[in-house]
Amino acid sequence: MISRISILGTGLLGTSVGLALRAAGFKGIIAGWNRSPEHGQVALTMGAIDSVAADPLEAARASQVTVLAVPIYATLDFMEKLAGVLGSEHMVTDVGSTKRIISEAASRLYNAPDRAAFLPGHPMAGKERGGAALADANLFRGAVWLFTPVFSNPVSSNDAESVKGTGFSPYVRLQEEIGALAPEGISPTGAALMREWRQWVAAMGSKIIDLDPVRHDELVAWVSHLPQFTATALSALLEEEVGDAPELKDVGGRALREMTRLGASPFSMWRDIAYTNTEAVERALLALEQRLARLRENLRTPDLRDEFEQANRFRQE
Amino acid sequence: MISRISILGTGLLGTSVGLALRAAGFKGIIAGWNRSPEHGQVALTMGAIDSVAADPLEAARASQVTVLAVPIYATLDFMEKLAGVLGSEHMVTDVGSTKRIISEAASRLYNAPDRAAFLPGHPMAGKERGGAALADANLFRGAVWLFTPVFSNPVSSNDAESVKGTGFSPYVRLQEEIGALAPEGISPTGAALMREWRQWVAAMGSKIIDLDPVRHDELVAWVSHLPQFTATALSALLEEEVGDAPELKDVGGRALREMTRLGASPFSMWRDIAYTNTEAVERALLALEQRLARLRENLRTPDLRDEFEQANRFRQE
Repeated sequence: MISRISILGTGLLGTSVGLALRAAGFKGIIAGWNRSPEHGQVALTMGAIDSVAADPLEAARASQVTVLAVPIYATLDFMEKLAGVLGSEHMVTDVGSTKRIISEAASRLYNAPDRAAFLPGHPMAGKERGGAALADANLFRGAVWLFTPVFSNPVSSNDAESVKGTGFSPYVRLQEEIGALAPEGISPTGAALMREWRQWVAAMGSKIIDLDPVRHDELVAWVSHLPQFTATALSALLEEEVGDAPELKDVGGRALREMTRLGASPFSMWRDIAYTNTEAVERALLALEQRLARLRENLRTPDLRDEFEQANRFRQE
Repeated sequence: MISRISILGTGLLGTSVGLALRAAGFKGIIAGWNRSPEHGQVALTMGAIDSVAADPLEAARASQVTVLAVPIYATLDFMEKLAGVLGSEHMVTDVGSTKRIISEAASRLYNAPDRAAFLPGHPMAGKERGGAALADANLFRGAVWLFTPVFSNPVSSNDAESVKGTGFSPYVRLQEEIGALAPEGISPTGAALMREWRQWVAAMGSKIIDLDPVRHDELVAWVSHLPQFTATALSALLEEEVGDAPELKDVGGRALREMTRLGASPFSMWRDIAYTNTEAVERALLALEQRLARLRENLRTPDLRDEFEQANRFRQE
């Protein structure tokens, strides 16, 4: 049913979405738009899009599905502008790394019978550097693609108790439980487009998980933002300690390279995340600081064994 | 000249040394010994050694070069025992991860005209799990192999000022500067064996760097021990937060897997390191705690940009 898609933002993620759609067999038209037209041209040359649009709002109006693949604040800007020009025959989705603010805007501006539908999304895939040139049709293969639709029937406390006992699980519903649902009040066309978009995401090789938006931001603070900020702090610290002796950087070998690879991530990719998920990231960072302090105070006590054994459990299949 | 080598400890490193020697063209005899004879048998089957010795001291006596590839405290035990049975025609080396204690024992027990020679060594290579079965002839290829010989002519302050301005560099001398040197007072045979062992290490594909033993322990606290303990603390913390919801572990994707891979390292590989490099590791951990705290307090200030830019510099070639 979806025959026209526009991708606004042809960086690493947007261009990879285009390539992955083609690899999954999408035969319709894909229009691309990018703030810098040269980068749009790269996506075109790679075959990720069929044309570079001059006007993003017109491209979205001419499409059934619009994918916002720009930083979070730019996504919010587009959500405002698109809400004014799209209608019940349109569906919009995004790939932003925090979802509370975006889901709030979706509830406010979209998902009413006479408005466009909006499905907040977050593919857990990326690279430490951005840009269309690094795009990959297989970027999403084997990755989790999170959605945070806001339902008018939130999970009841009964449901919560029936799920396993983690702080997160009550808010998780897997695709098989939730796939047929759509936010209440949405147009029938919007609901159908959402269902089909989920099928394309699955066809790109991703595993879909639906999460409450607030829980999403808490979860990714732990499993994505904390690892990034840890790598950044560790890399910056090591730059200070051994940065002026390049021959010593080699000494650390593979383990050091791996623990600092994410140190190459640019601020421009993480600024909006730090701004829109501040409290959850603060909590996670503080918890790691305390954990490191406890380890430091127990380098010669039996506690160190316990810490290694708990870490080992995390890595068991 | 070296025609008989014994490897005491046929775990990951010892067995890899045997395989790498063979791959580099060593034609002599390699005897192996392991506390658990079954593991010695694995190394034999893999072709890393020619025989499994029943008595490690006899194997060392029958060899020109003995490689100690056991944990640090076991290395110290062997150093005591071997000093009593070896003489000026023998050379001993090791692969332990901390070098201050081992270099002190080497000065006390070895490196006199009528005693065996001892060259403290530390290949910066390994895997997050040990054992002969994971051994690899290419484990040391491209890696740095550190030596910490104790010279009676330490680097003078004049020399130190002539080297670049890092806290570590004055203590570093690269192979080309130091390769021909040997600790003063050593037997001529011992000195020749040391020189030839360095050539075999280079033939295994390693880049050799000589360091002062105390500076070695400070350096590896930053570039090896800190990354390991950070991965352990991060993995243990995440096990507590999301460990009982396996579907959520997948959410983090490649970045999370990479930042926690070392979390699989067993306590048995790291206990002796925590015990024999406690102060330097404490300093490095405290510095990271403070760095993380500063980052946490600056998630919404321009400082965050500076931190990312400094981290980016560490990852530049």
